Amino acid sequence: MRATTIHAPFDIRLSEVPDPVIEAPTDAVVKIVAGCICGSDLWPYRGENKITPGSRIGHEYVGIVQEVGADVRTVRPGDFVVTPFVASDGTCPNCLAGFQSACQNLVGIGSDQADGGQGEFAKVPMADGTLVATPGVPDDALVPSLLTLSDVMGTGWHAARSARVKAGDTVVVVGDGAVGLCGVLAASRMGAERVLALSRHESRQEIARQFGATHIIAERGEEAKAAVLELTAGVGADAVLECVGTDQSFSTAFDVARPGSTVGFVGVPHGVELPLRRMFRTNVGLAGGMAPARQYLPELMADVLSGAINPGLVFDAELPLEDVAEGYKMMHERRAIKVLLRP
Amino acid sequence: MRATTIHAPFDIRLSEVPDPVIEAPTDAVVKIVAGCICGSDLWPYRGENKITPGSRIGHEYVGIVQEVGADVRTVRPGDFVVTPFVASDGTCPNCLAGFQSACQNLVGIGSDQADGGQGEFAKVPMADGTLVATPGVPDDALVPSLLTLSDVMGTGWHAARSARVKAGDTVVVVGDGAVGLCGVLAASRMGAERVLALSRHESRQEIARQFGATHIIAERGEEAKAAVLELTAGVGADAVLECVGTDQSFSTAFDVARPGSTVGFVGVPHGVELPLRRMFRTNVGLAGGMAPARQYLPELMADVLSGAINPGLVFDAELPLEDVAEGYKMMHERRAIKVLLRP
Repeated sequence: MRATTIHAPFDIRLSEVPDPVIEAPTDAVVKIVAGCICGSDLWPYRGENKITPGSRIGHEYVGIVQEVGADVRTVRPGDFVVTPFVASDGTCPNCLAGFQSACQNLVGIGSDQADGGQGEFAKVPMADGTLVATPGVPDDALVPSLLTLSDVMGTGWHAARSARVKAGDTVVVVGDGAVGLCGVLAASRMGAERVLALSRHESRQEIARQFGATHIIAERGEEAKAAVLELTAGVGADAVLECVGTDQSFSTAFDVARPGSTVGFVGVPHGVELPLRRMFRTNVGLAGGMAPARQYLPELMADVLSGAINPGLVFDAELPLEDVAEGYKMMHERRAIKVLLRP
Repeated sequence: MRATTIHAPFDIRLSEVPDPVIEAPTDAVVKIVAGCICGSDLWPYRGENKITPGSRIGHEYVGIVQEVGADVRTVRPGDFVVTPFVASDGTCPNCLAGFQSACQNLVGIGSDQADGGQGEFAKVPMADGTLVATPGVPDDALVPSLLTLSDVMGTGWHAARSARVKAGDTVVVVGDGAVGLCGVLAASRMGAERVLALSRHESRQEIARQFGATHIIAERGEEAKAAVLELTAGVGADAVLECVGTDQSFSTAFDVARPGSTVGFVGVPHGVELPLRRMFRTNVGLAGGMAPARQYLPELMADVLSGAINPGLVFDAELPLEDVAEGYKMMHERRAIKVLLRP
């Protein structure tokens, strides 16, 4: 089969690789219907993360189960499934507590141990603990939204949950990438009265509005802080979603959080120094991390199937799998927010 | 009147100072029944904080209201009151949200603007927003426990609340000072099934046990971590209270926190570098800060008056106010956990 491999910075190829086969009795093999490129795939692409030449890449996909091992109970051939970006056993204490992303037997998708999502087929380890099937094979129009549940929508949802968004809140979302936009959608879906999206890109502002942003703040740094404080009578936001991961974005997040609130963070932190003394003084907490996408899948899947949310709008480009290298280029050059790939 | 002043490191004096008088119509004057020395008073005492020679010190006391300004509504002369360690207006958005320690008009007790608690009398600003009166004048035996509500018990409670302790939890408390011990009591009162107190001092272990600690862990660092993991099947504690504020204590706190849990912190951080990447990976959050003692006062006062909690046990020494300098010496030399002062 064909799958995406990375060989050096900016060197993405569609390569011939062995077909996946069931090895453990808990494995499943899935025929990929759609995969996509994640913002975090751009780190190795840009050479910011170490690359093992020829390694597989991509960790988001949906597909149809082809074959399952003898011990798999919850999915069967023909099921349409969403695969979260990490595989989890579903039975360890961390999984049982809903933190499948800290599973004691965690396996990253798109790693040595589990095929990536930018290919034709994928073997999924610990299928029962990992995959969630739709009630029937969904309409093709729902595929983009279902695909977001493998990562970005679950991650945006986690930011909002971690920030303890509740009905009536004023929420600030820092970051207008696919995750930040999904954070806007999550906050809105959780009943936030005002959702303030920090964004200076018109195409992203437009999606933010469609996702429920009531205010767009195009300023940055001190000016963004001033804008939020003006909108909140000088108090700050009830909840803040940090969806970037840089020192500046964290700083802005704490700048606009009201005393006693929580910054929910899901951007992998890069070079961040937390303002701990200030957190002490203002009682602004920090919660979040790698999203337990698996935890949220049943709930968010129901919302997608009912039409309550349409996170698939974050995909503003769709390419055939052959053009995967072009997809990376588009995202790197910010010509696309998020690229969907069809094998 | 006489009140405690600090002149240089290790130079504590009982000095003659002007009697407090009502200036603003929202002021009250309180005759101090009991005050005490806080662990944080030891920072200037040891020269770790800057000292203005001759400045007042001490921020914990209870007493009898002597006189109130024309606008004071909630307390009147003769009332026995607890004064939290910061004065708050009770009407700003942060106070209304329960974070009086982030009041927009915050005044520190024992500062230029409000008399300290290690003296004979104290003027209290914003009396209605700050003071809480007992239903009648309480039995003298209850004075130590009521006194802890001005700071250490409220702070220990805040650590447990911030860490989201719930019934049935396994809780680790890092720190065996008065605040840590009150954290043990708080966790126990909140229904924790197991409270693991990190302590290597026998007298403190004994109080921890009286406060509900089910396990004493005398080890530190890696060995403390191993002990907690062994007691929790390798998973870690459901909630962790950080009641010290050093880099090592924070490190231990994150070492023993299970994925998805929260470290509640109330120790003023000194030179702490947070393990942000690790927090991301394990979804261990951080919440807390300067305790809104005022928020918890009504609830904790009821618990003290009913005998449900007896936090006054943290006082293992009582001195007349004249001996305040000796009190500091005893705490500095760790001959006392916490010293109560009677004017």
